[in-house]
Amino acid sequence: MSATTVGILGGGQLARMLALSGAPLGLRFLVMDTSGDACAGQFAPLLVGDYRDEAALAEFADKVDVATFDFENVPAESAQWLAERVPVFPNPGALALTQDRLAEKTLFRELDIPVPDFADVPTRTALDEAVARIGTPCILKTRRLGYDGKGQFRIKSPADVDAAWDALGAQASSVGLILEGFVAFQRELSVVAVRGRDGEFRAWPLTENWHVDGVLSASLAPARVDASLHATAMSHARAIAERLGYVGVFALELFCRDGELLANELAPRVHNSGHWTIEGSETSQFQNHLRAVLGLPLGDTAVRGVACMLNWIGEMPDPTAMLSTAGGHWHDYGKQPRAGRKVGHATLRADEAEALAQRLADVGEALGRQAQVAPVVARLREA
Amino acid sequence: MSATTVGILGGGQLARMLALSGAPLGLRFLVMDTSGDACAGQFAPLLVGDYRDEAALAEFADKVDVATFDFENVPAESAQWLAERVPVFPNPGALALTQDRLAEKTLFRELDIPVPDFADVPTRTALDEAVARIGTPCILKTRRLGYDGKGQFRIKSPADVDAAWDALGAQASSVGLILEGFVAFQRELSVVAVRGRDGEFRAWPLTENWHVDGVLSASLAPARVDASLHATAMSHARAIAERLGYVGVFALELFCRDGELLANELAPRVHNSGHWTIEGSETSQFQNHLRAVLGLPLGDTAVRGVACMLNWIGEMPDPTAMLSTAGGHWHDYGKQPRAGRKVGHATLRADEAEALAQRLADVGEALGRQAQVAPVVARLREA
Repeated sequence: MSATTVGILGGGQLARMLALSGAPLGLRFLVMDTSGDACAGQFAPLLVGDYRDEAALAEFADKVDVATFDFENVPAESAQWLAERVPVFPNPGALALTQDRLAEKTLFRELDIPVPDFADVPTRTALDEAVARIGTPCILKTRRLGYDGKGQFRIKSPADVDAAWDALGAQASSVGLILEGFVAFQRELSVVAVRGRDGEFRAWPLTENWHVDGVLSASLAPARVDASLHATAMSHARAIAERLGYVGVFALELFCRDGELLANELAPRVHNSGHWTIEGSETSQFQNHLRAVLGLPLGDTAVRGVACMLNWIGEMPDPTAMLSTAGGHWHDYGKQPRAGRKVGHATLRADEAEALAQRLADVGEALGRQAQVAPVVARLREA
Repeated sequence: MSATTVGILGGGQLARMLALSGAPLGLRFLVMDTSGDACAGQFAPLLVGDYRDEAALAEFADKVDVATFDFENVPAESAQWLAERVPVFPNPGALALTQDRLAEKTLFRELDIPVPDFADVPTRTALDEAVARIGTPCILKTRRLGYDGKGQFRIKSPADVDAAWDALGAQASSVGLILEGFVAFQRELSVVAVRGRDGEFRAWPLTENWHVDGVLSASLAPARVDASLHATAMSHARAIAERLGYVGVFALELFCRDGELLANELAPRVHNSGHWTIEGSETSQFQNHLRAVLGLPLGDTAVRGVACMLNWIGEMPDPTAMLSTAGGHWHDYGKQPRAGRKVGHATLRADEAEALAQRLADVGEALGRQAQVAPVVARLREA
């Protein structure tokens, strides 16, 4: 009986946490990354190579029984090439769809999932028409290869259209452009969900997220929303997963505006807004992703109390305050510090909302990170 | 800022679970084992060498910042040699003490902790005298290097004394012998506890254990005992840890006979009866061991509901039934099957005792392991 080896394309913190959570299932891992310094390589064998290099991909395919991703921008052709040799989950079609903002939003609309206004922008003329129709403020984005706020230009008034086209117009004929209406949302939410090979669907409770400079700063789960909003979000996530024949964990990011949910985007992988599931749920997103990919029964997604995840960007804070707090859990990804880089996170868990609010406020003060915890504390203390 | 590397002597499942639980603290690991096939090597760098080989130990010492154990029978001299070069926790003195049943029981007695009758057996004459004083049934054991029922001879009546001496007498002058009174206990319990570098002491709730052929079969936590018994057990564990200047996790195995606790033995490491803490407690024994060894704040040892751990001996069962059960968690150590070998375990968790009893009974039946779960189910259903 030889062990199953799971291949992961991309060797960052998601691959690292997948490997750590998959070890108890008796799995072996092989991580492929373009960098020999990828942090997943500290706990799993690492194959260094470019995702477009067929020889490297062939070596990877030879050594793994099934493949998945920690990184959604693996070239769709590479995923397809691989899928002709080993089972790949999620399927390359789902991956390709989420790499294209226009195709993704078109799918949402086909499934009667409300989305912010959007328009395809193949030309400068199309941009003018789209701005006239959608109105300002709005955001011009590349259709593909955007990540964490890059490849975007905010159009505050029609006077900005020239500058927007100067910045991104050259990409209209390569990766394509999309104009999206600006959504004056009150909340950002995400559904982290999993679908098995047999079609079974499970989701963790809705999570509320706060971003700073386009990067996730904090998450709170379960989000404090009413049951009908929760049910709508779950229904949207399920419809998308079923349409795509999706297998594994994914996150559906949503805006909540005046009580209405608008779908923002789909991340075809375990997701930063699901990191709290490691300690805050009976089964983590990482283990359930692997269970799904392997065709094993999905684990219980029930929550344990209330959890807040705080992202550490650039460098790790001193761990003492968090480790000294009941329910405090530390996650250092083993990365070198670098401005803007996700280097770790912490999850603080409590049985009740007020206990979590108090612990968060205390930890925030001890770390000098009052601003990071403040919106979460405020949400927990709303009537 | 370079990462801290923790060295672990012994590369079995305990080292493996230490590495997996220490990764989120940003730690690196180096595991040393006599076998290149040691299962911890699947998730941490492995140095193959004999613990008595000074060159191998020197290489190990050079590469680690702090060292600990997954295996208590590392030669005491090797631990001492290492401790002169890098910090070693628990201290080699504590390790040496637990390697000698006579010294260990003498310490328990000095601390006013009740123990089964015992006697040093340096000679055949001493054996006769000890059997006369302690009575039969009793057990003759080697003082050192016993493990899981090996190096033991049960004396059911005085007529067995000759056979016992024939079996073990030759070791009286090498590793020493001890005669222990047989304890007609009703329960086997263990305290799994942790002491920090600063002397802070924390313990998980008392655990009840069931053995089959001298090997742990099942554990239930929290043990269903009254508060005064619980407090006594904790007090014993704390007294031992303080006397030894112990740093890290240890397990104190106890017999409960007619409401009285008798100390059986001390395991100077994370322990099989504490595996349930991975999912059943806020902080696992593995992470708290590392926090202690590194001088970090200890984590919360609060339980989450009720947990039962089932050991898998020889080979792994089919995981489907356990993975399909809410609160079911799987731990495959990545070992080759072999008779008598601990190859994995599962932990089943529930919020309430009756829910756990029902799930255990169902899983036991699905796996054809009714006998393994029966005593746990019965205990959970006692009035």
